[in-house]
Amino acid sequence: MSEQYKAAGVDIAEGGRAVALMRDAVRATFTPNVLADVGSFGGLFALRDLPREPVLVASTDGVGTKVKLAAQRGQWRGIGHDIVNHCVNDIVVQGARPLFFLDYIASSKLIAEQVAEVVIGVAEACQAAGCALLGGETAEMPGVYAEGAFDLAGTVVGVVGQGSLLPRPDQMEAGDRLFGLPSSGPHTNGYSLIRKLLDEHHGTDEWADACLEPHRSYLKEIDMLDGADVPIKGLAHITGGGFTDNIPRILPDSLDAALEPWPLSPLFATLCRWSGMAWAEAAHVFNLGIGMVIVVDRAAGDALQAALPEARPIGTLVDHDDSPPRVRWSQP
Amino acid sequence: MSEQYKAAGVDIAEGGRAVALMRDAVRATFTPNVLADVGSFGGLFALRDLPREPVLVASTDGVGTKVKLAAQRGQWRGIGHDIVNHCVNDIVVQGARPLFFLDYIASSKLIAEQVAEVVIGVAEACQAAGCALLGGETAEMPGVYAEGAFDLAGTVVGVVGQGSLLPRPDQMEAGDRLFGLPSSGPHTNGYSLIRKLLDEHHGTDEWADACLEPHRSYLKEIDMLDGADVPIKGLAHITGGGFTDNIPRILPDSLDAALEPWPLSPLFATLCRWSGMAWAEAAHVFNLGIGMVIVVDRAAGDALQAALPEARPIGTLVDHDDSPPRVRWSQP
Repeated sequence: MSEQYKAAGVDIAEGGRAVALMRDAVRATFTPNVLADVGSFGGLFALRDLPREPVLVASTDGVGTKVKLAAQRGQWRGIGHDIVNHCVNDIVVQGARPLFFLDYIASSKLIAEQVAEVVIGVAEACQAAGCALLGGETAEMPGVYAEGAFDLAGTVVGVVGQGSLLPRPDQMEAGDRLFGLPSSGPHTNGYSLIRKLLDEHHGTDEWADACLEPHRSYLKEIDMLDGADVPIKGLAHITGGGFTDNIPRILPDSLDAALEPWPLSPLFATLCRWSGMAWAEAAHVFNLGIGMVIVVDRAAGDALQAALPEARPIGTLVDHDDSPPRVRWSQP
Repeated sequence: MSEQYKAAGVDIAEGGRAVALMRDAVRATFTPNVLADVGSFGGLFALRDLPREPVLVASTDGVGTKVKLAAQRGQWRGIGHDIVNHCVNDIVVQGARPLFFLDYIASSKLIAEQVAEVVIGVAEACQAAGCALLGGETAEMPGVYAEGAFDLAGTVVGVVGQGSLLPRPDQMEAGDRLFGLPSSGPHTNGYSLIRKLLDEHHGTDEWADACLEPHRSYLKEIDMLDGADVPIKGLAHITGGGFTDNIPRILPDSLDAALEPWPLSPLFATLCRWSGMAWAEAAHVFNLGIGMVIVVDRAAGDALQAALPEARPIGTLVDHDDSPPRVRWSQP
């Protein structure tokens, strides 16, 4: 059987080898809520210690063509951190904390060591987030994926009490302050453009590796603000569509954001120069060095900066102007 | 901006067009538990009317290279049914009922109508299962996917009271009866082999279309058994690895399964003839016309057949024999 089946492109033994390589890392993520998998068709997570009026918050995402750059550079583990932190940030901005994660990896040809490296990266990031890696799927799909290419998607499920949901657009008002938390690089956005630029400008391996720095998680920082009793009105995760598309998602119709540019890191300065994009244009694609935007009351700004010294003040909320854009920059 | 970004292969406008085409179908799946998406970075699902000692059951899966056949035949909607029903069956066998689903679609080039067809299929199957389509991601990944190819993955989250978890291996005993529920075709397994066979034997479009029949959901049938108070000891979803790998997942170490072959449908008879595989070999790859196996007490067999006339008795549990395999067929 296995010979016949292998001939059609699916190597079951290699899949088993990948599972053996990743098993310990996955088990290390199991929180006490994970029940021994009796039948293992699905992962089991006991709901205990729920907040009042519990709401599950779920998000599925991929890491875009960053996987292509990772495959070219043979750097698999960081991509695992990317998918987890991207997804976790997406539910943290709703006020939730992660419970569990599931991953999906597919490639033209399954190579056990590569798949295990990706999943070990996923498991490491899950463990850091206190999130169980509850399940996953590895697929070998000859003819669907380009040779040597792979894709990675993930789903996170978290929980929040209905009273703690974010954002709170009804509490926002003109004069509220916006702060930015540093990103570790382009995170997981703009990679089709980045790869094109690296190509056209003969970017060195060092540049490519800098672009592969894993997506940062902001879970700890938001926990610190909660611990310091800094009331958050809204959080915007700066992902695809940059500041232009992500900040308006959390604003009431009556308010816009007025932001001031900041000094760019060498990496983003180079990407902007190579692409020829002006600031406002680049801010529609890249995070430009700021991966999470926090909206707080004017009175809470000092407390926020005391709790998170790395937070940079980047602007304020202003009354809505009928002429677009809703995110305005103080200089082009 | 969009021109620069589009040049790198990602067409944001086409993504927006896909979302517009699928919006109504997605909204139709929203159960009362789905909260209006305030910020929409993640989907929100209010946990209400939970069973005692609630356990979340989650599963992520893909549909394998069936997507390749679907793309060749331009039949997109059925693939959406495939992923949902595959995932739902995987948690039904643990005793759970689905709460919500999230999908991930990626391709080399995003074509709005194709993506919308897939997602409308996902939404139709979700609605039939009483399951909210809470979120999803569509990615265009030039260079990662083969030209014209796409992939589809999904994650389902369901709930069950801890006391209702399946399987119950401690209750199983020699003499328990196994019944099979008909499949609608190969479901989502064995497609690398199926495509190779269709190719080698010049399979007609009619054969290809028969192979694309969507994966059947068994949710309604299992609900009917519950409604008729037929106590279920275990359910095995016959997916990758066929009967050989999936039945042992629910058995205690002390028991094996002794099964009797059944008459094959023309489709499976042809696939077996083309592949040259004997029954036991084919039963390690294909579902051979039975997609769900139910284990009940000997005394409950008649009640099961009264509730589900299409159920076929396929064998019994027997004392474990030290020599493999654990699933034995009465004839080769």
